[in-house]
This record gives sequence, C-alpha cells and structure tokens, in this order.
Amino acid sequence: MDKTIGIFGGGQLGRMMAQAALPLNIQCTFFEANTDCPAGVLGQVFSSQDEQGLKQFIESADVFSLEFENTPVADVDVLTQTKTLHPPRIALATAQNRLSEKALFDELEIPVAPYRAVDSLESLKKAVAELGLPIVLKTATGGYDGKGQFVLRSEDQIDTAWAELGPAKSLVAESFVKFSREVSIIAVRGQNGEVKTWPLAENHHHNGILSHSIVPAPNSEALQPVAQDYITRLLNHLNYVGVLTLELFVTEQGLCANEMAPRVHNSGHWSIEGAVCSQFENHIRAVAGLPLGSTDVVRPTVMINIIGQHPKTEDVLALNGAHLHLYNKSERAGRKLGHITLMPVDSNELTNLCRQLAKILPEPLALTDDMTI
Amino acid sequence: MDKTIGIFGGGQLGRMMAQAALPLNIQCTFFEANTDCPAGVLGQVFSSQDEQGLKQFIESADVFSLEFENTPVADVDVLTQTKTLHPPRIALATAQNRLSEKALFDELEIPVAPYRAVDSLESLKKAVAELGLPIVLKTATGGYDGKGQFVLRSEDQIDTAWAELGPAKSLVAESFVKFSREVSIIAVRGQNGEVKTWPLAENHHHNGILSHSIVPAPNSEALQPVAQDYITRLLNHLNYVGVLTLELFVTEQGLCANEMAPRVHNSGHWSIEGAVCSQFENHIRAVAGLPLGSTDVVRPTVMINIIGQHPKTEDVLALNGAHLHLYNKSERAGRKLGHITLMPVDSNELTNLCRQLAKILPEPLALTDDMTI
Repeated sequence: MDKTIGIFGGGQLGRMMAQAALPLNIQCTFFEANTDCPAGVLGQVFSSQDEQGLKQFIESADVFSLEFENTPVADVDVLTQTKTLHPPRIALATAQNRLSEKALFDELEIPVAPYRAVDSLESLKKAVAELGLPIVLKTATGGYDGKGQFVLRSEDQIDTAWAELGPAKSLVAESFVKFSREVSIIAVRGQNGEVKTWPLAENHHHNGILSHSIVPAPNSEALQPVAQDYITRLLNHLNYVGVLTLELFVTEQGLCANEMAPRVHNSGHWSIEGAVCSQFENHIRAVAGLPLGSTDVVRPTVMINIIGQHPKTEDVLALNGAHLHLYNKSERAGRKLGHITLMPVDSNELTNLCRQLAKILPEPLALTDDMTI
Repeated sequence: MDKTIGIFGGGQLGRMMAQAALPLNIQCTFFEANTDCPAGVLGQVFSSQDEQGLKQFIESADVFSLEFENTPVADVDVLTQTKTLHPPRIALATAQNRLSEKALFDELEIPVAPYRAVDSLESLKKAVAELGLPIVLKTATGGYDGKGQFVLRSEDQIDTAWAELGPAKSLVAESFVKFSREVSIIAVRGQNGEVKTWPLAENHHHNGILSHSIVPAPNSEALQPVAQDYITRLLNHLNYVGVLTLELFVTEQGLCANEMAPRVHNSGHWSIEGAVCSQFENHIRAVAGLPLGSTDVVRPTVMINIIGQHPKTEDVLALNGAHLHLYNKSERAGRKLGHITLMPVDSNELTNLCRQLAKILPEPLALTDDMTI
C-alpha cells in the first residue's frame, strides 16, 4: 500500500472510508473501544481500552482523520505532537460544543435560531422569558440522534426539563424553528484550499433518527448557492481539510443552520452510487493530499437507512436498481445497521420502490407515498 | 458476516469481487500460491504451496468460486466432494482447453474461425494446407495475454512454429480471422436460471495485452442481440452460475467467437462505475444465490489499463471524473497494475481525456486520437 490513514472511530463511516481508500492503495487503521467493529474487516483496529492503544495507533499511520465527532480532544492533542490530523482540532472542538458552534455561525453570519446559554434554573427561566415558547433545550456537549434534548412547550415543564438536562451544567436553549423541511449540505476542502460541494440532501427523520435522504433536495435550486456559501465560509475560516457537513432548516426566512458535523455524514451515503466521487473517496483524497473528485450527481438518488432490524438481503436486492450496504452490526432498536440506495428514473418509480421497501423493512420508517425527486 | 465465499485465486479479480461482497456482509477467502496477493487485504489467503492449504481453504467457506481460469481441475474435484463450486467444473475444464471450447462453440452453433487440431509436425503441415495461410497456432491448454501463440504467415515458418509450440503436444491451428475489431460480451446467470447481460465492450490491445475497453461498443446495436444469444446458449448449456465472458471478433460475416473465460473479465471492469450493478457484485450475488442486479449502463464508459509502471496517482485523479483502481502490485513489464475508468460526456471529451492520459501513463498504450463513444 502507498499510504496509511489512521481514523479515530471504527464504525460504518470508517468502514466506508476504508472501502473508498482501498482502490487508491491507501490502507486505513482505526482507534475504537471495541476492536470487533464494522471497520475492522478492512484494517487493524487499536483499542482505546488498551493502555498502549493510542500510542500504537499513532505509530500505525502517516496521517490521521476521524469518523467519530466525539473523538476526545485530549487524544487529538497527543496525536498532533507528532502527526497531522485532518480536519483540524479546532473544527472538532467547535462541533463538540453547541455554544462554540453557534458562536462560530454568528461570527460567520450564518443564520441560526435565536438561542441563549443556560447554566442554571434561573438562566433557563430567563431564556424562556426572552425567547418565548416553545424552545428546544439541548446539552452543549454530547447528545446524538435526538438524545440529550428536551422540547419545552409550556412553562410548567421548566422544572422537569432542568431536572433532566440540568446535570450537564452547560446547556443551550434554542427557539423552536418553524421549518418546512430539513436539508444538509456536504462539502470537501482539499489541502490546496479547493472546495467542492455536493447538492443539498433533503432529510427525513423518524423517532429522531435519519430515515432517508433525497438528493438533490427537490426544489432546492435557490437554496443551493446559499448553502454552498455558508459551508464554504466555515471550511475556509477553519482552514479545514476533508469533508464537512452542515445541517440546515428551510424556513420562511430562508436557510437556518442547525449544526455541523466535522466528518462524512449519513445524509451523504447516497454519493457512493449517486455522485461521480463519493463523500468517502473525496474525504480520503483530501486527507491524503490528492486532487478532489467531481461532486456532480450521476442520477437523482434516495438513500434509506436500515434501522434496528435487518430486512432479508434477497428482498432488498430484488428491488430494481437497489444497492445494499450492510455494516456488519448486530440488531438493536434504533441502531443504524445499513442503508439502501435507490436511483429511480422518476417520482413514480420512487413512490413504487418506497412502497415495496416499506413492506420489506421490519422497522417502520418515514417513507411516505408522495415522494418526489 | 452473513456468508463466506471461497475464491480460487487471489489477484485483482478476487480483490474486486471481495470489495463488491463486503457491503452485502459477504466475506471472501482465497486460495493462491503467494499469500501476499492483491486480494489478501480483504480476506484470509490459504497458500496452494502449503500441504494443508487446500483442505483449510475448503473448510474456510460456505460456497466457492474462482477468479483464475487455470485453477487446477484436480483441486476442484477435491472441493466438490463436500462443497459447491460456481461456475460448474465443466465450464472451467472446457475453457482450459481450446479444442474442447471450440467443440462446444460448434455444438451450440456459435461461429468460430475454421480450425484444426494439431499434435504433430505432420498434422500442422496438413492444417496449413487445408486452412491456408496465415494461421494462428495456439497451445490447446495454457497461454494467456498473447503467450503460447505463433502467427504463421509463410510455409517456411512451419518448422520454427513447431519448434516453439510443439512441446505442448496439443495445439490448435486457427484460420487468421479478418476482423475489423474485437468485442466481448459479459453475462451473469443466477441460480434460478435468470440471465442478465451487459452491453458489448470494444476492446483495444497493445502488445497482446488489453489496453482499453469502450462500453457500449460504438455502433453495436445490431451485434448486441446476436452476442447475447450466443452467451445465453453457453450459460444455459453449461447450467452456469456466475459471470461468463465471451470474446468475439467483428468480421464481415458477423460475429465470430474467439474464446470464453469462465469468470469476471478485464473488459468488464468499466461496470464498477458504468453499470448499475457491476460484474463483480453480480458474480457474488449469483454465487451467493441472491437476486441479480440491473446490468443497465449508467453512462458510456472507457476503461484503461495501467500496465507495467504506475502513473502518479495525483495526475490520474486530477483528470475530470476519473476513477482509479490500483491492485497493490509491484511494477513489472506487461503486468496489469490497475485500471482507470472515465465516463466522458461525449467523444470530444473522451479524446481530450485520452490525450491527457497518454501523457500521464509511463507505458504507451493503444490510445488513439479518434476515439468515439
């Protein structure tokens, strides 16, 4: 192999990065608590439970990246004494704290919902008074797939919300954004500062977990340049190298940033088949210092998550044009086990395929009958 | 992983099979002389040099296939005492002997160039007399990428040809086919007998080695159904499971079969990006008893081999829309080290990309300035 990239995390994102790296003769290694992880079949896994694990992981590769946004900054600080991490530490640290993240959005004039920092019951009451209700109360750090959040709809919920999330000490109260839909923009920045952006994905959730993404997001021609501008500001400001994701709400006032993820993203899995160069390959290219690939769309694409329980493989593969990506994970409620990519020729075929898929998938998803591409 | 497929051979074809198998939670193992082979990064390799190698390989997987057409039939016979091989032994044995292969083509009324079996200097002289000159003299078994062949253009070459190839004992003398171009058809047959065919590839050689393939082969609308019919006859007659390749000459009299390969094929590498479902994934699907994927073309595609020496990775990836597949092999004259896939929008872009590529590739190839798609 020509080069080795060490990746913090060894889940499905690392697995798909390593799959993309292999044809470029780039080997990946991983740093993960459990060495029996989805990426393990593609490269050596160093355990974060092992005293020597971090040291050995740092020795194992030429350059480093991450697939896990809660990678401890302390580990990164050990790494960067001798090796390079892409994306930069500042992007990771900022994304790990909702308050830092919102401050960055403010600084770069990227619209966000009105918010207040909350660190006491008093400041929560003050935030409610200033922002009005409803608000979403979130822990500033941690939280994932809807966990660590509380939707406050009436003042008599204030004590309950504080009891639930208060122990986290640092919270953020956000005005409830009235949005018509959620979209995300994914972009990659190379070591020479070149930026390439994929089209907006329209994301649908079910029980707080991404159910499916449609790309390009329907009727997003006017939104695309705005989202591209926002994410480019972030990439350049952070002197970012690799793939960055920005989740956005579509509101009557325009796009409003929700949060960023300093990594490849579930809403970009469509790009393996749907784009000329996938988010995984372009991330690897950027981290390895190689030229970026085209982010053009090959064909409109729908990506559907497999959550909690596996469908029968033969049922999925019998769907016309379906691509199946399993992550070699055991079943557990709410767990992302794989995804399915569909590339329908029109909205009729999309609706038909989604109806068939809804029958096949053991776990209900937010698949609706009136999907358009 | 859900299933393990054992593959005879561990070269780049096995590597790309295993890459296609991974997202389906299918693991591959390999049987290869050198365990440090291109497929080794994706699964355990059992050495054919090791006394226990075959036994351990047979124990390592649920079902078996091959990527190496010279897989010893004796090994297959040991395997099939307890396990199943797809494609069937008869396909392998037939493809390993040009005389058996031509007899099968005759039986199925698939046109081949006039030929004679040759096993002595006398029978070579007789063949020359009956077929006329020029003829191509080939060993019945062995031979690959133009090796084990002698083009006989005049009678005074008869002794030289016999001296060179005679020791092989069993030869075939073929009339020199006057062809305008070489094409190949690749098809897959599932365990339920379903057959799917990719479009014809137009293949260009340089020094007897495949240089590049263009898919769909230009102006092949009338040839496609004929080629499909021929390969379907072979698949059904052999009760074949998996991917089969048939190489054909385009002559004034129509298509004429050259040879078949009971495996995925270099001229099908384009299908990784260029088809909805690649030859590798469909082969894995067939061997695993899963439904076949669509063989529709996403976009016209050109596949260019990297032979002998590596170009700079960054030069290849800087080409618009280029996909690079390296096989993790060391450089050696005439060796296939990787391939590049291009999906140009039109013949102009194809010509431009090929001109750029010709400058980048250290080894000259048969890339010409007047390519069309």
